[in-house]
Amino acid sequence: MLSKNKIKLIQSLNRKKTRDELGVFLVEGNKMVEEVIRSGFQIELIACTTDFAEQHPEMNNLATELIITDNESIAKASLLQNPQDALAIVYQPNNEIPEVNLKNELCLALDFIQDPGNLGTILRIADWYGISHIICSENTVDVFNPKVVQASMGAIFRVKTTICDLTSFIKTSGEGGIPVYGTFLEGQNIYEQSLSRNGIVVLGNEGNGISDAIGRLVTQKLLIPSYSNHPNKPESLNVASAAAICCSEFRRR
Amino acid sequence: MLSKNKIKLIQSLNRKKTRDELGVFLVEGNKMVEEVIRSGFQIELIACTTDFAEQHPEMNNLATELIITDNESIAKASLLQNPQDALAIVYQPNNEIPEVNLKNELCLALDFIQDPGNLGTILRIADWYGISHIICSENTVDVFNPKVVQASMGAIFRVKTTICDLTSFIKTSGEGGIPVYGTFLEGQNIYEQSLSRNGIVVLGNEGNGISDAIGRLVTQKLLIPSYSNHPNKPESLNVASAAAICCSEFRRR
Repeated sequence: MLSKNKIKLIQSLNRKKTRDELGVFLVEGNKMVEEVIRSGFQIELIACTTDFAEQHPEMNNLATELIITDNESIAKASLLQNPQDALAIVYQPNNEIPEVNLKNELCLALDFIQDPGNLGTILRIADWYGISHIICSENTVDVFNPKVVQASMGAIFRVKTTICDLTSFIKTSGEGGIPVYGTFLEGQNIYEQSLSRNGIVVLGNEGNGISDAIGRLVTQKLLIPSYSNHPNKPESLNVASAAAICCSEFRRR
Repeated sequence: MLSKNKIKLIQSLNRKKTRDELGVFLVEGNKMVEEVIRSGFQIELIACTTDFAEQHPEMNNLATELIITDNESIAKASLLQNPQDALAIVYQPNNEIPEVNLKNELCLALDFIQDPGNLGTILRIADWYGISHIICSENTVDVFNPKVVQASMGAIFRVKTTICDLTSFIKTSGEGGIPVYGTFLEGQNIYEQSLSRNGIVVLGNEGNGISDAIGRLVTQKLLIPSYSNHPNKPESLNVASAAAICCSEFRRR
């Protein structure tokens, strides 16, 4: 059984302050805990049912603590609407500025993404398109927010994320002719541009797009053109949809 | 002020049963109510602040009932976390099988999409890419669910949606060599296919993809290839991301 204190601890991981103080985050659901097990991430606690434990003998000795319990007990601790058979408390990796070789590599930079579902989806898109690094501005929603973790469907264990001063990062890493892309309503049709295999693709805030400070560092402004013939034109795409289309365009040949 | 009964009515529109009985749906937020005003949709009620009313004189005589009230009163009725200055009750359009000319037109078919955020985002993508019709299977989440409406960012007023037996629709409309596309893990690289400007693009359920029954009607199976080099490969893309990439591929030249 999960003790009252453990349940309290698990639920407190909904708060960024607690996550940061303890240096951990919460992972829920069978698939997600399977992802943790094979991720190489350091695990503080796994709580799961007998069935789940029997199906995953490889998790023995992997976590500092393993608690075999029942669904009722897991449901009590769970932040999910539909709790499953397993959850885990996982250590946050170091938040180091990554050594991204932007001469060969493409990375995403997030400028004030607010919605956890969007961030999780963007992680998943980056994972699919083989983008290994995402740089997040300091005002972007926390990647260890449980909603981000769940929406990432495991991508959080494969795509490295770093929180830093985005302006400095782009200024420093963008030196020496590294292209910096971003989508703008006044940009050039993405379908007609020749896109490089390296550089930084900036994605902007849900309501306001890319900030002025970051916009000034963008070397190539792109537009995903609308094909709408309706008299009332749509204003914009969701940022995760824009991320999907951009990644697709940068990778396809 | 909004009466107790009006507040009760507004909140009851969170339930599909009530929406269908009354033949209406709820629209919230300043931008969304602005979209309703210029949409041509029939409006039962607009409730808004004095400021909003003054800024939108064009809405007079548009709604059967116009209630000018304060933010507090709107907040009481609102289903949103951050209520704004206006909300509206709008009549659902007829659910007729549309006369889609699939010889010239591309439409989306949704096979059991469950998440309201995904459906709203798909509506927005269709709107952006000039796709006028979306056909929804009977088990797809209700398009008039408030979360779908809000996530659509107004696309719900421009993209026609129809709920029907998807199998029959594809069988009937797909006659005479109309191409039916769908994404499958065993499909062919979408980036290497020649895609037509007309036909049906099927999008499948979040967990299980396209159902067997619908899968048998697909004439061209597509794959959005992963570019991941990670030893633990990602399993799939979110369905709205896949929709964005598909629409982009069908429209770009």
